[in-house]
Amino acid sequence: MENKLQELKTRLLEMSDLNAAASVLSWDQTTYMPPGGAESRGRQMALLGRLSFERFTDPAIGHLLDDLQPYADSLPQDHDDSAMLRKLRWDYEKFIKVPVALMTEIYGHSPMIYQAWTEARPANDWKRMQPLLEKTLDLSRKFADCFPGYEHIADPLIDQSDYGMKATDVRRVFAELREGLVPLVKAITEQIATDDSFIYRHFPQQAQLDFGIGIIKAYGYDFNRGRQDLTHHPFMTKFASGDVRITTHVKENDVRDGLFSTLHEAGHALYEQGINPAYEGTPLDGGTSAGVHESQSRLWENVVGRSREFWGHYYSQLQAVFPDQLRDVSLDQFHRAINKVSPSLIRIDADEVTYNLHVMIRFDLELALLEGSLEVKDLPEAWNSRYASDIGVTPPHDQDGCLQDVHWYSGFIGGAFQGYTLGNLLSAQFYSKALEAHPEIPSEIGQGKFDTLHGWMKENIYQHGSKFTAPELIQRVTGGGLQVQPLLNYLRTKYGELYTL
Amino acid sequence: MENKLQELKTRLLEMSDLNAAASVLSWDQTTYMPPGGAESRGRQMALLGRLSFERFTDPAIGHLLDDLQPYADSLPQDHDDSAMLRKLRWDYEKFIKVPVALMTEIYGHSPMIYQAWTEARPANDWKRMQPLLEKTLDLSRKFADCFPGYEHIADPLIDQSDYGMKATDVRRVFAELREGLVPLVKAITEQIATDDSFIYRHFPQQAQLDFGIGIIKAYGYDFNRGRQDLTHHPFMTKFASGDVRITTHVKENDVRDGLFSTLHEAGHALYEQGINPAYEGTPLDGGTSAGVHESQSRLWENVVGRSREFWGHYYSQLQAVFPDQLRDVSLDQFHRAINKVSPSLIRIDADEVTYNLHVMIRFDLELALLEGSLEVKDLPEAWNSRYASDIGVTPPHDQDGCLQDVHWYSGFIGGAFQGYTLGNLLSAQFYSKALEAHPEIPSEIGQGKFDTLHGWMKENIYQHGSKFTAPELIQRVTGGGLQVQPLLNYLRTKYGELYTL
Repeated sequence: MENKLQELKTRLLEMSDLNAAASVLSWDQTTYMPPGGAESRGRQMALLGRLSFERFTDPAIGHLLDDLQPYADSLPQDHDDSAMLRKLRWDYEKFIKVPVALMTEIYGHSPMIYQAWTEARPANDWKRMQPLLEKTLDLSRKFADCFPGYEHIADPLIDQSDYGMKATDVRRVFAELREGLVPLVKAITEQIATDDSFIYRHFPQQAQLDFGIGIIKAYGYDFNRGRQDLTHHPFMTKFASGDVRITTHVKENDVRDGLFSTLHEAGHALYEQGINPAYEGTPLDGGTSAGVHESQSRLWENVVGRSREFWGHYYSQLQAVFPDQLRDVSLDQFHRAINKVSPSLIRIDADEVTYNLHVMIRFDLELALLEGSLEVKDLPEAWNSRYASDIGVTPPHDQDGCLQDVHWYSGFIGGAFQGYTLGNLLSAQFYSKALEAHPEIPSEIGQGKFDTLHGWMKENIYQHGSKFTAPELIQRVTGGGLQVQPLLNYLRTKYGELYTL
Repeated sequence: MENKLQELKTRLLEMSDLNAAASVLSWDQTTYMPPGGAESRGRQMALLGRLSFERFTDPAIGHLLDDLQPYADSLPQDHDDSAMLRKLRWDYEKFIKVPVALMTEIYGHSPMIYQAWTEARPANDWKRMQPLLEKTLDLSRKFADCFPGYEHIADPLIDQSDYGMKATDVRRVFAELREGLVPLVKAITEQIATDDSFIYRHFPQQAQLDFGIGIIKAYGYDFNRGRQDLTHHPFMTKFASGDVRITTHVKENDVRDGLFSTLHEAGHALYEQGINPAYEGTPLDGGTSAGVHESQSRLWENVVGRSREFWGHYYSQLQAVFPDQLRDVSLDQFHRAINKVSPSLIRIDADEVTYNLHVMIRFDLELALLEGSLEVKDLPEAWNSRYASDIGVTPPHDQDGCLQDVHWYSGFIGGAFQGYTLGNLLSAQFYSKALEAHPEIPSEIGQGKFDTLHGWMKENIYQHGSKFTAPELIQRVTGGGLQVQPLLNYLRTKYGELYTL
């Protein structure tokens, strides 16, 4: 039994290293690769993806799982090996349903469409992306069709990133959230607009980067096991326990953009850096779901990083870095500006109140595309019309419309967006649990100290990696399931103080 | 036959992509990887190396080669497919003699000892490196012993990088060269030392980098298919025809160091960027030998980059970048300073005259280590005593002694150094051939124009990749074999003008 387990772990480590190598290639593609490398890079990444996939779906894995089942059954439910074997069994049973040829096509298509998108977005060139996105849609459908018996064609894709959720569950949650959000947005946007003009003064890039790095170090992001680089669209990526990297982008005419991207990606990285290193190379070595992952990025970006306590500590430091730009701006003015609620075009720059409306648009459009009720060629129009009706603004061009988000242009259509809103819900749930245990957290944040909050998250969430499914983890941490009210309460309280509600 | 050839090329492309992926991981290790990534990175690179090696030595390759032999025989000698099949056959017959287990050990050891070296060299920690270098020696010997029947144990290692050369050939060439160099060094160093104190003024890093980039662009290095980053020890690496990168290092208290490293690596990169892109993914897609490769790095670094014509054009530009540092320095003073001949400690910073003496020390020590007449533990002393006797200086510490060069600390002992001197010899041979064809080259260099020289090298050398062996290529280009006299003539002429000889 010991030998079988060792053999399995050796095989898993090899797959994990192949995936890590593919991730290094992808990181390089988005950070430093010269344009001439694009074609070969897609081919190289596709090869590594295929080799890992072939190893993962090798019948030998199934035999080892069968041989190890009695061992798994003999262990307590929450034993690491038991959890690992359970998770592996799920993944294995799922992926053996997918033909290698399809995955190879997907692995080949992803870096190629991503590369095209990095050029087409700045050029506002929807026509170039349309056929490529049609291919993505086709591949996404074929992938979903490997799992017949679904209720909705998006379900297998949603299940990929948020295990245990179906389209119908997401829709129900989104409907409840929307019901709470719409009147809140209305009440706020009827008021006199907050002045945030000073946000758009000139803030030199390096000083912005240095300031953000100082904060995420205080959060607990370990630069000995990570680094930060610039990319088109910020992300977090993990090559090993000891190498968890983030990227950001900076606008010199917007002091918020780079900073909050940095805090967001650092939240993802804290999660990955906090996973039990003994899980390295196993299916447990990664955040358990997109939603739980986003709960951390959104927590450190917003719940912490846009709070009054946080800026009570950091604002004088920011003023010291940018004296000319911020001398005439008070802490209150700044805090209101970075929390200004307003209808806007870009999801990742949206305020906390309207943010989820952006996500809902994408989610609905994903489902419509998959169902076939919306064709790719009609996406720009559908996108713009939903922005007009839901947010009250119309993108002047596709660059800030349906071309804005990397996800459809680098992975699947379906399963890419619901995690953001699930994450917002969970960030409020988890944070209120952390506060119950440690009411001193806000005052510590006010001193630039994050150890208690970080420690609580590590203890309750991070260390477990994928040992528990998202529903299991939420149950363990909160004593219940996913809830909409904590986020609405958080938003009503926070924005009740910022605006007159 | 068509199908077999296609199958072979598909397999070769896959191996080439695995090697490229390993190279990306290695590039990242030396440029940006955080310290925490070291352990997993070694494992990941070893895995990719092993997977490529297993594919390369798969008996199926042998069968395909056998099946394709009649096709190869039916082609003219200089047909691309014929050359490719011939080269592949050599490599295949060689590598099937090496056990996968040994290669796996080598692939695992290399990144590990490299990582240790990057820490141990600055810390002057020979004790840390000694056992690791003993392991390298052991692996190098085991590798050589896969090819019984050698004349000298270094022969299989030399043959790896400089096909067709044996230890005895290298020794004969080195002896002839030394005979010419020693009196030249003596005649020069008896004269009053050149003043080069201004070289060590403060030259800010970014300005140095920008200046170097301007020059290598003029050389013809294509940044759309490459880039430059900073590393501990400069190198060139290729991931595909479209992605050929170089690295450099800069000292702010030495204006030569970064610049000439940049020109050197750009020379390697011009070669790789100039290879027929149709060879991508085949064994022809790479420079044909270490010696021919070094002929290009040393040509663009020295023959071009340290010439009077070159600085006649560039010196005023350098003065414009560093006015305070160089206002009081004339073109002649500068040109003499960057060509100052003096006994020194560091190979890569050595002048053109003494440089080859540095190489000879390493070559002799490599051979002694492999033979067993020198033990690793005695290397520092042997190194220092050879520096005292051959160069006339004694390293004050191992950091600038036997720890200085990356090669033993990242690859094999044996075969690593002779290529540098062979390259110097060939640079003089090739350059004099280029001058015969285009006497206008020096005056073009004097105008900052390099197209004729670059074009001649591309036409005669670069485009062919590994289509011809080094001896074949030298024969084609020069009409004869490797010669010592052209380098001695070049040095005597150049230094005859700089010094009174």
